[in-house]
Formats: sequence, C-alpha cells, structure tokens
Amino acid sequence: MSAPVIAIDAMGGDFGPHCIVPASIAALAEFPSLHLVLVGQAPVLEDSLARHPGVDRSRLRIEHASDVIAMDERPAQVLRGKPDSSMRRVLEMVRSGQAQACVSAGNTGALMALSRYVLKTLPGIDRPAMVTAVPTERGHCHLLDLGANVDCSAEHLYQFAVMGAVAAEALGIERPRVALLNVGTEEIKGNQQVKLAASLLQQAEGLNYIGYIEGDGLYRGEADVVVCDGFVGNILLKSSEGLVGMVSMRLEALFKQSLGARLVGALALPLLRRLQGDLAPARHNGASFLGLQGIVVKSHGSAGPDGFQSAIRRAYREVHEDLPQRLHGRLEHLL
Amino acid sequence: MSAPVIAIDAMGGDFGPHCIVPASIAALAEFPSLHLVLVGQAPVLEDSLARHPGVDRSRLRIEHASDVIAMDERPAQVLRGKPDSSMRRVLEMVRSGQAQACVSAGNTGALMALSRYVLKTLPGIDRPAMVTAVPTERGHCHLLDLGANVDCSAEHLYQFAVMGAVAAEALGIERPRVALLNVGTEEIKGNQQVKLAASLLQQAEGLNYIGYIEGDGLYRGEADVVVCDGFVGNILLKSSEGLVGMVSMRLEALFKQSLGARLVGALALPLLRRLQGDLAPARHNGASFLGLQGIVVKSHGSAGPDGFQSAIRRAYREVHEDLPQRLHGRLEHLL
Repeated sequence: MSAPVIAIDAMGGDFGPHCIVPASIAALAEFPSLHLVLVGQAPVLEDSLARHPGVDRSRLRIEHASDVIAMDERPAQVLRGKPDSSMRRVLEMVRSGQAQACVSAGNTGALMALSRYVLKTLPGIDRPAMVTAVPTERGHCHLLDLGANVDCSAEHLYQFAVMGAVAAEALGIERPRVALLNVGTEEIKGNQQVKLAASLLQQAEGLNYIGYIEGDGLYRGEADVVVCDGFVGNILLKSSEGLVGMVSMRLEALFKQSLGARLVGALALPLLRRLQGDLAPARHNGASFLGLQGIVVKSHGSAGPDGFQSAIRRAYREVHEDLPQRLHGRLEHLL
Repeated sequence: MSAPVIAIDAMGGDFGPHCIVPASIAALAEFPSLHLVLVGQAPVLEDSLARHPGVDRSRLRIEHASDVIAMDERPAQVLRGKPDSSMRRVLEMVRSGQAQACVSAGNTGALMALSRYVLKTLPGIDRPAMVTAVPTERGHCHLLDLGANVDCSAEHLYQFAVMGAVAAEALGIERPRVALLNVGTEEIKGNQQVKLAASLLQQAEGLNYIGYIEGDGLYRGEADVVVCDGFVGNILLKSSEGLVGMVSMRLEALFKQSLGARLVGALALPLLRRLQGDLAPARHNGASFLGLQGIVVKSHGSAGPDGFQSAIRRAYREVHEDLPQRLHGRLEHLL
C-alpha cells in the first residue's frame, strides 16, 4: 500500500478540534506512512495545531471548509444547504481519490445522507449499514445495522449479512459465523422480515450462515457477525452502553460501602475502569458505513481522543484491506 | 384481603418440581396468609413434597393434572391438544375464582396463548403484554413488552403504555414517567409505529408521558415505564442478561489475573455475585402478563427456587393491589 491519505472532518463531534487534533497527531505517530488532511475552519485548526509543537506538517495538512454541520441538524437541511461543510468535503475527497478514506464524529444522520449522495452505494446495495465490533465472551462480534436504517426488509437484512461477513473476513476472521438476531432460536420465532431473511440466507452459497441468535447468545460469542435492523441494533448498542455504566456505578458504590470493601475498591477500581473502556464499543471504536463506494468511518460524537484515534485506526485498516473493492467482488457473487 | 390462593403450575420450567416445590414452601413461610395449590402430576409432586417434612399441608394442596407442556411445544398444538395440562388448569382455576392468581415457569408462547384463550383480555385491550422490573441507576423501571408481541401497531404501543403506567402505580410509583423506546430523542427519529404512538400518547390525559427514551437513558433511570414492541424488548432484556454474564466473567478473570488482583478477587467475588443477581431481572423476578382478566405471572424457565419465589411474590402483590380491576378502571378512562 502506498502512503494512504485519510481525510478528517475536524469540526464534528461534541468536542470538535480539541479532541480531533490530538487524536490525529497520535494516529500519525502510530502509522508512520499515514498522511492526514484536517478539514475545517482553517484559523481554528491552525490555532489548535499550534498547541502541539513538533508535528510533522509534511504528513498533516489543513484544508479550509467554511461550514460546520451541527449535531442536531436534519439530514435534509444538510443536503440542501451548507455546500462547503467539512463533512461534505471529506466525502468529496474520497470520491475524487484525493483521500482513500474519511473519518467524522459528526451528526450520524447527516453523514449517512451525505455519504449516499456523494459516494453512492455499491452495485446491488440499496442502503449502507453501520457496523462496529462489540466485545463478547470469546472476543468480538460485528453487529449491524446500528441505526442507519430503522425499517428494513428481508432483502436489506440479507445484504447486511453479506456485507458484515465480508467486513469480518477483511478484519481477519476466517469463515465468519453469520447469525440473524431474533427473539428465539426456533424456526417459528420472529417477525416476517426476519423469517424471510432467514430463508434467503439459508440458500446463500459461500456464506457461513448459522441461523438465529438471541441477545444473550450475542454476548456469549456464538456468532462473528450479528444482523438486525437499525432500530434494534441501535437500542441494543445504547442499552448495553447504559448497562455497563450502571454496573460500573454499582460496583464502585459496592466497593465504597463496607469497610473491607473499601480496600478492595481501591485496588479494583482501576481494573474496572479499563474494563469499562473495553465494553463501550460505540464510544471507543469507530463504526464503519458499509456498502458505499468509499471508506467512511464514524466516530462516536462523545468520543475522546482515544476513541477518535481508534476510528482513524479502523479507517486505516479498511484502506489496507481495500474493503470496498473486496465487498464489490463478493457482492457480485452473492447478490 | 382474605387469604389469597395462588395456583402454581408445578411442572413448568427447566427444573420442574425440583425447583418449584421448595420455592412454594419458602413463599408460604414468607406470607403467612397465603394458600397455594400445586398443579401437576400428583405422584411426582407428592414425592417431591415428601422430601420437605413439616410443610403445613392445610395451606398447600396438590391438584392432579395429567398432561405436561414441553418447553418447545408450539402454542397452536398446546391449544388443540393437552386439555389436562398443569398450565391450562392453573388458568382455569383463576377464571373460576378458585385462585386469585397463577404462576408458571413453562413455555412462554404456550402460556400466552392459553392465557388469552382461557382468561380473555380486558375490554379495550387487543393483546396482553409482558412486563418486568429492570434495575436502573436510580432504582427500577418497568419494561414492556418483553416478547409476547413481535409486531406491534401504534395502538398496541399506546395500550402497553397505559397498562405499564397502571401497573407501576399499583407497585407504588406515583405519577410514573412513561417513555417510548426509540433510536433518538428528537421528534423526527424512529419508525412509523413509534412516531404514531408518540402522537397518541401526547394527547392522553392522566398519563405522565415524557417522550422518547434511548437505550442508555433506560439504564440511567430516566423513566419509570419504558414501552417498546416485543421484538425489541426481548432482545434488550436478553442482551442485557448476556452482557451482565460477560462482565461478570471478565471481572472474575481480571481478579484472577494478577498477583495483587487475586487477593482483591477473593474479597470482591461474593459482592459481584450478589450484583449479578440484581442485574438479571428476567431470571430473578417474575414477569406479569398485563391486560388479561386475571393475574398471570411468568417465571423464567431457568429460574432457580429464589427466582420462582420472586414470581410468587409478584403474583401475591398483584392480588393485594387487585391489579386487573385497577387496570379495568383506568382503561375505561384512557382507551
């Protein structure tokens, strides 16, 4: 791979350049061949960069974009207005080949709408899906869709399964086990879309479809790729995040409660905090938009520098694996 | 309240009488006015009871039912065949007034189908819903539906909201905050059913509807009643159960890993186990079927004696609060 260029929407997310600039500098240190383009309001970005002396500017350049998309703007407004937003510009750089991937922590709905408009989907794909790696008892599983599509047909679920399998393969899993998320594992369970998607997947050759999986099976690590509609996926991911927060809070309270426990707590809390980090995938890893003619990684809006750096790492790996091209090849076969 | 009678399906669940008989005996000790009827294969139950000498048989009687419903039998088969199942018999005892409530750990689909057939729904209710108390950062919230209805219209969600609010009130929460589970809190978010249900709930007088809630808000305790369709609710509940299992596993591993941590672990593990119990509501509390002309509580299939005893406790409280009658009164007002 020749020196890859990743375009960074430097204005997105809850913390904007304050988080994204240090994350970008850390990513440059992590990957010596990486080049980054920080896109956003140049004066703000120059100011932010000035606080980090010694940055290798031959691998980090700033490109000015005057508009900023707010976290609560409607996708339709974003499509019509704001032609010079940092979010739109990073996508245009990917389309034109100036960058091989882009990363944004901005408004998810706007990023999805702009991605479809600027990059277009791969042939055979109706809708892109969002995927991330969720920790399980045995490692990780790739869960999709995470909220890009609230209503899905059986065909959409089928396409998500194919895309998830190819992405999991690209990230190093051999013959990934693909499962459909359902309210039971018996054939009669589930709604119409899920049952129909199951029959499509049973007929798919070259896909290691293992059947239905329940919510607890997901965390037991019974599949490598778990497929659901975006409504369910989003609620699963966010409720898991909330639950981990609650468990941590209760554990801390528990360790502070009793006399003996206080000693235990002093020793245990650092361990717990590390675990909490592992268990909040949305906040700590990037999520990919699969099915586009280009690589788009979404970092969580409230991610800190570590989280944003993870998102850059994810984009870097997808460039390395040439994920859209791989997807394109497999989709021709499977769709 | 005169001495309440609760009918127990003694053959259901993964462990049958081995779990249900000791749980019933413990419930009799907990509630001195309670009477129980154990329904099932009399010889098996007598045998089980014989292992617990000193039981007050004036408050515990056995009623023979020859058929047993398997955990994987289809609801349609159960409705047609097996007229003398323990599950059907406990429901018939509630209908005839011989018992004020029943508890079963059997096949959920069969119990729901039989409940609707034997007891019928309250006027104005199309479908019963399953509800349980889920722990949050601030206490508990009542989540419904948990899987009885995989496809729901806006009207169904509205009915669930009303029933959940009344049940929460009966269990001691004043003016419970009712929220709809969604993928965002902005008005434009969500699928058609959820958006339509929101507009119905906004117009409902006498209901403390607070709007949309996300998965993480649920665990932060932002609502007392959280409403969703049974597909989403089931997946949320089971994935939460799986996640707590995974967190416990990882914590235990963490505490065994390092030298210093091992000492911490010895002290911390008992605390963790207790917490794990609190956090697995499906396994540890009963779930109620709301909207029927009678009280039906479902215990988790894999519940141990403690879990089954909790389910009996839930049924006892609902008898005490005369929940179906309260629901009936409020529904006339709100539907």
